[in-house]
Amino acid sequence: MVKDAQNYALAHENKKYCSINSIILVLISNPYLSNCQIDIMRCLLILQLAVLLASCSDDRRLNVRQISPPGPITLVIHGGAGTILRSEMSPEREKEYTDKLLAALDSGFAILHGGGKSLDAVIAAIKVMEDSPLFNAGKGAVFTHDGRNEMDASIMDGSDLMAGAVAGVTTIKNPIVAAHAVMMKSKHVLMAGKGAEQFAEEEGLEIVPPSYFFDSARYRQLQRAKNPGKETSSIGQDRKFGTVGCVALDRYGNLAAGTSTGGMTNKKYGRVGDSPIIGAGTYAKNGTCAVSGTGWGEYFIRLNVAYDVSALMEYGGLSLDKAADSVIMKKLKGMGGEGGLIGLDRQGRVAMTFCTEGMYRGYITKKGQGKTFIYRD
Amino acid sequence: MVKDAQNYALAHENKKYCSINSIILVLISNPYLSNCQIDIMRCLLILQLAVLLASCSDDRRLNVRQISPPGPITLVIHGGAGTILRSEMSPEREKEYTDKLLAALDSGFAILHGGGKSLDAVIAAIKVMEDSPLFNAGKGAVFTHDGRNEMDASIMDGSDLMAGAVAGVTTIKNPIVAAHAVMMKSKHVLMAGKGAEQFAEEEGLEIVPPSYFFDSARYRQLQRAKNPGKETSSIGQDRKFGTVGCVALDRYGNLAAGTSTGGMTNKKYGRVGDSPIIGAGTYAKNGTCAVSGTGWGEYFIRLNVAYDVSALMEYGGLSLDKAADSVIMKKLKGMGGEGGLIGLDRQGRVAMTFCTEGMYRGYITKKGQGKTFIYRD
Repeated sequence: MVKDAQNYALAHENKKYCSINSIILVLISNPYLSNCQIDIMRCLLILQLAVLLASCSDDRRLNVRQISPPGPITLVIHGGAGTILRSEMSPEREKEYTDKLLAALDSGFAILHGGGKSLDAVIAAIKVMEDSPLFNAGKGAVFTHDGRNEMDASIMDGSDLMAGAVAGVTTIKNPIVAAHAVMMKSKHVLMAGKGAEQFAEEEGLEIVPPSYFFDSARYRQLQRAKNPGKETSSIGQDRKFGTVGCVALDRYGNLAAGTSTGGMTNKKYGRVGDSPIIGAGTYAKNGTCAVSGTGWGEYFIRLNVAYDVSALMEYGGLSLDKAADSVIMKKLKGMGGEGGLIGLDRQGRVAMTFCTEGMYRGYITKKGQGKTFIYRD
Repeated sequence: MVKDAQNYALAHENKKYCSINSIILVLISNPYLSNCQIDIMRCLLILQLAVLLASCSDDRRLNVRQISPPGPITLVIHGGAGTILRSEMSPEREKEYTDKLLAALDSGFAILHGGGKSLDAVIAAIKVMEDSPLFNAGKGAVFTHDGRNEMDASIMDGSDLMAGAVAGVTTIKNPIVAAHAVMMKSKHVLMAGKGAEQFAEEEGLEIVPPSYFFDSARYRQLQRAKNPGKETSSIGQDRKFGTVGCVALDRYGNLAAGTSTGGMTNKKYGRVGDSPIIGAGTYAKNGTCAVSGTGWGEYFIRLNVAYDVSALMEYGGLSLDKAADSVIMKKLKGMGGEGGLIGLDRQGRVAMTFCTEGMYRGYITKKGQGKTFIYRD
């Protein structure tokens, strides 16, 4: 079911109650009642009782049907949340980020505008960010403790809940493409490590030597993370969850979501975060929303962040922005976690919610003019 | 919030409605009304209207507070769901399974009975099943396509949503112990492959050579899976998702859940199923329930099975058994998936729900007499 259908149904119900309310006000404010008015009062009592009992049914919200048409084609992206402060950003650096975010928006939107699927738009937008060293995904992936680049990605189709993901891959140029291949070309949802790389190779995806992912700035980040006392001024810069993600709505009313990451700088022991976990970092369901998260992955897994937004809409009757707010600003923050998410519902309503100082983000819709943001203000 | 608190609140509300209902029946069946009765009718109208409006608030169910004391110490286990037919089982084989399930129940219950924590009871019960070749976990893990035994496990503490998991490990004797170590001794939730093994070794967990997991019956299963045409009579036996799991409630009212598996026979490409995924195969939250799943992992991931049971209780107001039924019998089955789950709420109410022919399962509660079941009937 869809939130808008619920809104429609609730508005309809509320309207009904308002009419009853007016009649009741007339009746209770009149000290002398005719027999006819008493009869009306009786009918109202019965009617209200019936509505009251119906409204108390446990399954009420679960049975609202999808009735409204989808909203305009829309695409939303994020390039990671974290300690992103205006005071630490040069105008040149800011322009680099803004330009790349706009390029990602344009690339995904071109597909939607041409009648393409939301799933393909999500892949196109994420590929632009994976191919840039600015973001912690693909080319710009951070280094593990052992000096490697281990990447995770996932994708989900809201029309049929099909999903694919890869974790801990080191040789696949675009992990989001591999996640899509897992979804389309295998019976599995999640493949990890060497096995996932073998699958990608067999499927003819672009394989690169690990040196492709070497970036000197990222390598310096690893050195700082290993020796945190030495360069304290840069710690803030490093507390950035540079995951990238995209959610999109196509002209057929189908939602899709995707997420790609290089994980945490200095991560050890084959740590896997939330990005390749369906329900934690990525989720899409036409009836509710598409979500991609960025943040402290362990908290996102424990809170099932992406699916929780959907469940709060479906079972709790919340709107997208209220559901996103509840999960990020209350649950995640309350537990000591950090991060943010982008969300999109079938009406094209956008959420970009984060409890960090900033989040690289942007959206584009029917007019085709992308809008990007970096800081909280 | 807790389901029982909701039940209490709803029962309380329902009681109120019943009283109102009786008065209304008297009023509407009486053709001649006194002024006093008309006044009562007015009051009822206002009261009903107030209750009606309050009951339509979106956040009603989200604000019920936890008020009831926890139920008795209880432990529930499963040893996998699948094509388990009485006609294919010898009395000796049946006794082997029953005895081992009872041993697992007793092992976990001894901890609960001695005042121990639900988390430790879950580990104890799962270790018994991991150490037996009867179940597809630990010692009895099935073979991958490459003739290896790659195991996954996860555990979650319902009191604080802490969780730990390992995926694709080949040398750790008890993967559930490793999942617990990830939760307790690291900042991470999920570790995979060699990294997870290195972590387990550094933490002093019991490491065994891969040959420890060799089992000739499991190896024959792999050969049959690779050549499905050769021994059709045994295919039914192989369509078993032999994952093991446990959920427990201790005397402090804390729920915990754990799951351990050898995955799918003949799996390729580093495939990871639902067992190490928090929210898919395992979930625990004191306010709702503890869940461990067994089945076709890809569907469990796409449907966020374990967390969905919790969300249906928390946001949808369903009881544990209705929530489990909705997820397994409607969503999972409707999508073409197969499997089952065990669930336990804070009142000690047990769910053992599956849409396959059978599921090895059992529970034990205050009297300390374990009960086990295998088939549907």
